[in-house]
Amino acid sequence: MTLPRSADALQRRFDRVRTISVALVAGLSDADVSGQSMPDASPSKWHLAHTTWFFETFVLRDFVRGYCPFNPAFAFLYNSYYESEGDRIARPSRGMLTRPSLDEVLAYRRHVDIAMMRALDDLPASARRLVVLGCNHEEQHQELLLTDLLHLFAQNPLLPRAYAQGNVRIGAEADALRWVEGRQGPVDMGHDGRDFAFDCEGPRHTVWLAPHALADRLVTNGEWRAFIDDRGYDTASLWLSDGWAWVRQNGIEAPLYWRRDDSGDWSRHFGLGGLAAMDPASPVQHDSYYEADAFSRWAGARLPTEAEWESAAEGLNAEQGTFLDNPGAVRPVPAPAEDGIRQLFGDLWEWTASAYLPYPGFRPAAGAVGEYNGKFMSGQFVLRGGSCATPRGHVRASYRNFFYPHQRWQFTGVRLAKDI
Amino acid sequence: MTLPRSADALQRRFDRVRTISVALVAGLSDADVSGQSMPDASPSKWHLAHTTWFFETFVLRDFVRGYCPFNPAFAFLYNSYYESEGDRIARPSRGMLTRPSLDEVLAYRRHVDIAMMRALDDLPASARRLVVLGCNHEEQHQELLLTDLLHLFAQNPLLPRAYAQGNVRIGAEADALRWVEGRQGPVDMGHDGRDFAFDCEGPRHTVWLAPHALADRLVTNGEWRAFIDDRGYDTASLWLSDGWAWVRQNGIEAPLYWRRDDSGDWSRHFGLGGLAAMDPASPVQHDSYYEADAFSRWAGARLPTEAEWESAAEGLNAEQGTFLDNPGAVRPVPAPAEDGIRQLFGDLWEWTASAYLPYPGFRPAAGAVGEYNGKFMSGQFVLRGGSCATPRGHVRASYRNFFYPHQRWQFTGVRLAKDI
Amino acid sequence: MTLPRSADALQRRFDRVRTISVALVAGLSDADVSGQSMPDASPSKWHLAHTTWFFETFVLRDFVRGYCPFNPAFAFLYNSYYESEGDRIARPSRGMLTRPSLDEVLAYRRHVDIAMMRALDDLPASARRLVVLGCNHEEQHQELLLTDLLHLFAQNPLLPRAYAQGNVRIGAEADALRWVEGRQGPVDMGHDGRDFAFDCEGPRHTVWLAPHALADRLVTNGEWRAFIDDRGYDTASLWLSDGWAWVRQNGIEAPLYWRRDDSGDWSRHFGLGGLAAMDPASPVQHDSYYEADAFSRWAGARLPTEAEWESAAEGLNAEQGTFLDNPGAVRPVPAPAEDGIRQLFGDLWEWTASAYLPYPGFRPAAGAVGEYNGKFMSGQFVLRGGSCATPRGHVRASYRNFFYPHQRWQFTGVRLAKDI
Amino acid sequence: MTLPRSADALQRRFDRVRTISVALVAGLSDADVSGQSMPDASPSKWHLAHTTWFFETFVLRDFVRGYCPFNPAFAFLYNSYYESEGDRIARPSRGMLTRPSLDEVLAYRRHVDIAMMRALDDLPASARRLVVLGCNHEEQHQELLLTDLLHLFAQNPLLPRAYAQGNVRIGAEADALRWVEGRQGPVDMGHDGRDFAFDCEGPRHTVWLAPHALADRLVTNGEWRAFIDDRGYDTASLWLSDGWAWVRQNGIEAPLYWRRDDSGDWSRHFGLGGLAAMDPASPVQHDSYYEADAFSRWAGARLPTEAEWESAAEGLNAEQGTFLDNPGAVRPVPAPAEDGIRQLFGDLWEWTASAYLPYPGFRPAAGAVGEYNGKFMSGQFVLRGGSCATPRGHVRASYRNFFYPHQRWQFTGVRLAKDI
Repeated sequence: MTLPRSADALQRRFDRVRTISVALVAGLSDADVSGQSMPDASPSKWHLAHTTWFFETFVLRDFVRGYCPFNPAFAFLYNSYYESEGDRIARPSRGMLTRPSLDEVLAYRRHVDIAMMRALDDLPASARRLVVLGCNHEEQHQELLLTDLLHLFAQNPLLPRAYAQGNVRIGAEADALRWVEGRQGPVDMGHDGRDFAFDCEGPRHTVWLAPHALADRLVTNGEWRAFIDDRGYDTASLWLSDGWAWVRQNGIEAPLYWRRDDSGDWSRHFGLGGLAAMDPASPVQHDSYYEADAFSRWAGARLPTEAEWESAAEGLNAEQGTFLDNPGAVRPVPAPAEDGIRQLFGDLWEWTASAYLPYPGFRPAAGAVGEYNGKFMSGQFVLRGGSCATPRGHVRASYRNFFYPHQRWQFTGVRLAKDI
Repeated sequence: MTLPRSADALQRRFDRVRTISVALVAGLSDADVSGQSMPDASPSKWHLAHTTWFFETFVLRDFVRGYCPFNPAFAFLYNSYYESEGDRIARPSRGMLTRPSLDEVLAYRRHVDIAMMRALDDLPASARRLVVLGCNHEEQHQELLLTDLLHLFAQNPLLPRAYAQGNVRIGAEADALRWVEGRQGPVDMGHDGRDFAFDCEGPRHTVWLAPHALADRLVTNGEWRAFIDDRGYDTASLWLSDGWAWVRQNGIEAPLYWRRDDSGDWSRHFGLGGLAAMDPASPVQHDSYYEADAFSRWAGARLPTEAEWESAAEGLNAEQGTFLDNPGAVRPVPAPAEDGIRQLFGDLWEWTASAYLPYPGFRPAAGAVGEYNGKFMSGQFVLRGGSCATPRGHVRASYRNFFYPHQRWQFTGVRLAKDI
Repeated sequence: MTLPRSADALQRRFDRVRTISVALVAGLSDADVSGQSMPDASPSKWHLAHTTWFFETFVLRDFVRGYCPFNPAFAFLYNSYYESEGDRIARPSRGMLTRPSLDEVLAYRRHVDIAMMRALDDLPASARRLVVLGCNHEEQHQELLLTDLLHLFAQNPLLPRAYAQGNVRIGAEADALRWVEGRQGPVDMGHDGRDFAFDCEGPRHTVWLAPHALADRLVTNGEWRAFIDDRGYDTASLWLSDGWAWVRQNGIEAPLYWRRDDSGDWSRHFGLGGLAAMDPASPVQHDSYYEADAFSRWAGARLPTEAEWESAAEGLNAEQGTFLDNPGAVRPVPAPAEDGIRQLFGDLWEWTASAYLPYPGFRPAAGAVGEYNGKFMSGQFVLRGGSCATPRGHVRASYRNFFYPHQRWQFTGVRLAKDI
Repeated sequence: MTLPRSADALQRRFDRVRTISVALVAGLSDADVSGQSMPDASPSKWHLAHTTWFFETFVLRDFVRGYCPFNPAFAFLYNSYYESEGDRIARPSRGMLTRPSLDEVLAYRRHVDIAMMRALDDLPASARRLVVLGCNHEEQHQELLLTDLLHLFAQNPLLPRAYAQGNVRIGAEADALRWVEGRQGPVDMGHDGRDFAFDCEGPRHTVWLAPHALADRLVTNGEWRAFIDDRGYDTASLWLSDGWAWVRQNGIEAPLYWRRDDSGDWSRHFGLGGLAAMDPASPVQHDSYYEADAFSRWAGARLPTEAEWESAAEGLNAEQGTFLDNPGAVRPVPAPAEDGIRQLFGDLWEWTASAYLPYPGFRPAAGAVGEYNGKFMSGQFVLRGGSCATPRGHVRASYRNFFYPHQRWQFTGVRLAKDI
């Protein structure tokens, strides 16, 4: 892969990423950053420390002679799933680490940042590649930090807000959805390895696309409301078998953060800006694959495959859209009034109908970092395009995110597709 | 689809299928056919009755004026997962149906068989299509009956045998595995709909195959033994993350029916013929996807995709191989000493690296029978080729079986593939 | 303890007990006697075999030279909870033993019966004591066989009947409940060890009774109906904390075998004689301790202590009442129109407010049989008096039965008490 | 009950109790007081707020005209199990309340304290009784706060200390245990209701004691070590059936906070003062009822009944012993070198062989506060005497604490008894 052209560029990249993480917890208390609301989620403090552990372990420990670790116990506390790096604290126990405190974790970050900034000039290419990987890794955790924090706050009957809400314009219904025809026949997809990408994005390879069309924007809250009103959550025939079992066992009746008002109406939505009125024109968010799939069946459509999605996205500017740096609280916004396909990047991760599996010729990266992606290739579905909680510049057309079909605490949404 | 050319042919087909089911429980007691060893499995008696229910409900009830149901309560007892057919008994409770007795269930079968034989001549084409579907459906349950019975008997410390063992030749190690190069570029796959096929096998469509080769035979017990000896079950880096969790939580250390002798050696195998010596040259059976995947990684290979498998199988005789009608107890046999690719059909279902998902343009069949396949399209992997417990003639090159990656009580095996 | 005065008397006792067990399964199929509906319950076949194992192990193996066991594997299959007797099959797996068949188990019984009858004359006193214990042990299992069979059949939507219903007179409401004052001050209780008793019934010791009265009969279905109509199952303040949690988690709204008719009315009751009309004057049965306790609180009363119960029962004829040998299907009957306290023995086990704990000076019997009672002394409550499923002559005034407070598949009922 | 003789005395009592609670969290962070390590435990912050809610709800809301609640939402957040006070937050979710912050909770306390101090002079007697109840309630939560905090910190691999360790003298083995004969025959026990007591401590009533003796001190770490060395945790015959299941399922091999050193030796103990050397002469702590019972069986003894314990304790000074105000970290200390029975009060709660059940004539207090004790009367065992985490002056001879037999995160210990 091509590295940033100069040590300066790498320093700027590292510095920017590390600064954003800290900014995300401004205004949060030590308790806020220590809470864990479910095994899938982690405390904010853990995200701050684990991303730092990545640099300390794979760069400073392995490449910087005489580096003195901040605290040897942290290697155990802040390893996540790297089996080859030794024992780890059980994931559901992360919320019991009331210590180290947020202040200590921030000191840990500074210790590592200083050592990294000193070291960056002299690192060999292999280590500099790990720095780039670490920056991308930390950007992923920035998004996770936000989704986990939102989930934690949603358990609190006081419904605290993490950030100022900003102005929310409640619009009318969105414009009618239009279909955009996609490419057909042999198409190349996947990353070519020239710039940075995660290992699972390549190798580039050929697939064959059948005739199809994609919706020009994301499904909206208003459209989802019609699905509910039509008893979508009560109609077994719309659901996958596993999805229907999930709906019944968990009493699912709406997306994760929809809230009823006193009259029983789904008129409100909880987010990082607190409780707010539901905007019918904004994209529906926090739906599981099961829900996305059932909705699309109800709508007489289907979800796109990841190949269809990527062929539509290739060539578009992946840095344009609603990302983490948008003003106001983190949230998706209505599709702009433009022609053509919109909202492919940013706003919400789009569920695809593709299982997360290796591309032909896939080889995981060597060593501990090679545990990164390949080991998750069973039972999960691919999501594409990034979200309003993704740092701008983090995603690409080839970028593959993945979650289990029941998970929905991420910033997920739905784009429809159909055969033509 | 093309129906059997004459009413006679359909009657012969129906009669043969119905006869085989009953033959499978000859020698079993009422208790044997009533036991249920886990929620995934069903009692033999239930299989006998449920397959009968299919004909009674979708053919006799819907197409035969004046048909008098054997017992109206059976509609509730023997529905499986057809939500649109009303309430069902909870799956894990099937083992509590000590009544109706086996004799009553056999009487139920006769009642339906007689009504069906009378009706077959005059059924409209749509109903005759359902009869063909019902025959194929029953053949699937014949295999399930055997796998569930094997699982039940394996829980019994007396290790009873269901059928006579027959002669088992314990051979030397199998011949060295050889690689057979597959087709590349655009390839058509899927069923064309002219003869009978399940809805999920079509539509026929184009895929693009990358350069690859398939192993010329299945992986053997002897080869699996080497994997165990090399601490395959203790090496995290060989496993998918979910697979490793499954291994640890369940204390998995060998395929499902391997048994240790008194010296601790994995020298025995339990099967429908009872406990027997392990044959190193026979295909390894009853492995999960997780195990198949880990083994293939350990072997420096991977599992084939279903497209690779189908392109290799197309044109071969799907009725040749080790199927249910093989003499002796149901079991796979060593690959014959021939050149070229062997054991594609029969012996064992082969795990593929493909998730069970719809083909482009897939539409489920209409009505209740449409629940048949499409609703299971999440979280499962495709298996191909049939097994020694499959009725001969049941499978095709396009045939797709599917199970969750942790399941292994079916007659599953492994064929390796690799990129070239 | 005093043994039966002659070898003849012991033979008659042994023979009678062994004959009754077999009579209980007349009319049941191999499947019926093999099914297990929950971990708490065991298959009928298992009861038949386990009681036989008791004699084979503790008498024939240990005292009869040259006794040849029927099948050495049965020692493992039919041990229950005797840790000192070695490994056992896991309790929830008992329902998977479709083999040995009922016929084989009956042959096992005959094999042991013959050996026992031959040996009885010459057994030393210690062995004869074990024979008496084994007879009492088998009588306990006769009741369990019936309760477990009832539970199994209750899971079957066909609601099969185990035995002929017999005439059921549906009476009017029972006579008004009257209070009978009990003894006060120092009272001796517990078994004196002269005749047979289980170890936990002694030693005899003094307790101090406060002023109290007992109801003169059991609580009826009609009275329980008033509790339901008064929203007893919806009123948290009537329940113990654990009881309320049990009600909510399990959606409890009536005793175990009450059944609604099509109009939603609790007008039917399921029993060993099948489904029948609810008799308002008959004692309410199959209630948990939690329910008995809540009902008594609702009624402004409480449950009796076991000392209060025993002091009322002492001196009464424990063989008089509704026991297993009553004609018709096993069920309790309305209290006879007599003065004074009724139904203390037979009809239904009466929950007491006493935890099952050792009496002062309690010592478990030595050896494996000593595991019999003492090890269950935590978390359970005492029940007194026997039931309609208890063999006549099995219980005494000092007899202590015990179950966990949530269990209700036994033939349990309620007698009220109050402070005066 | 007799109230404190003057408003002044009540104020002093209230003030002292309220001050101690706040002192317990000095030095803890907002995260420390927000963490919850298991459903049985609660965050420190929750204890501080819930005890305040008690006064706000039952005194200020109900008796003080014009009282303005600090925050109406707190009624929902900080109710514990009072069903009649309306909905509550689910117990396992208490650890998700990262807000309100500790500072807000302390402000809540000040708000209520000021209102209470103003109101105390003019409260009617019924309200003053509730104030006394509230003080005793808060003292219970002071102990729970410490036990829950200890459990939380024990999950943290850093093993933080909550308080300074103080000097720990590691002594030799304790003096040999001696037996002290108890009273026999009719004995009165229970509280007479003249001073404050919880409802479950009365009414006073007569019991009959059999001949017995109590150990003159608590069982020590050294003695427990001998139990472990003798394979006590591996010997089924020493355990209750439920206890043995608990040992096996949870892999129990020592008391809760025993820790091995690098050589595998149980040489260390974790406590509120952090990790320290194990003192063989100090009382063994944090054992379950199951363990206490098994140990006593191993020792050829048994646990005392609560009547035996109370008859020994009556007349002794309940304020003398090792209580919460002892200098150094909270921990029990070796029995003083004195004659006669020692350590009855303070040091550790002593498991008794008595189930927690109502005394004859027991009536719960009326209204919501009546939910306080009576509803827990199933499945739990009584503990007596208070512990090193109990505020001095809180316990009495009649005081009944109670926990489930598997629980051991409280400051529990063992005193032996025997029949004579």
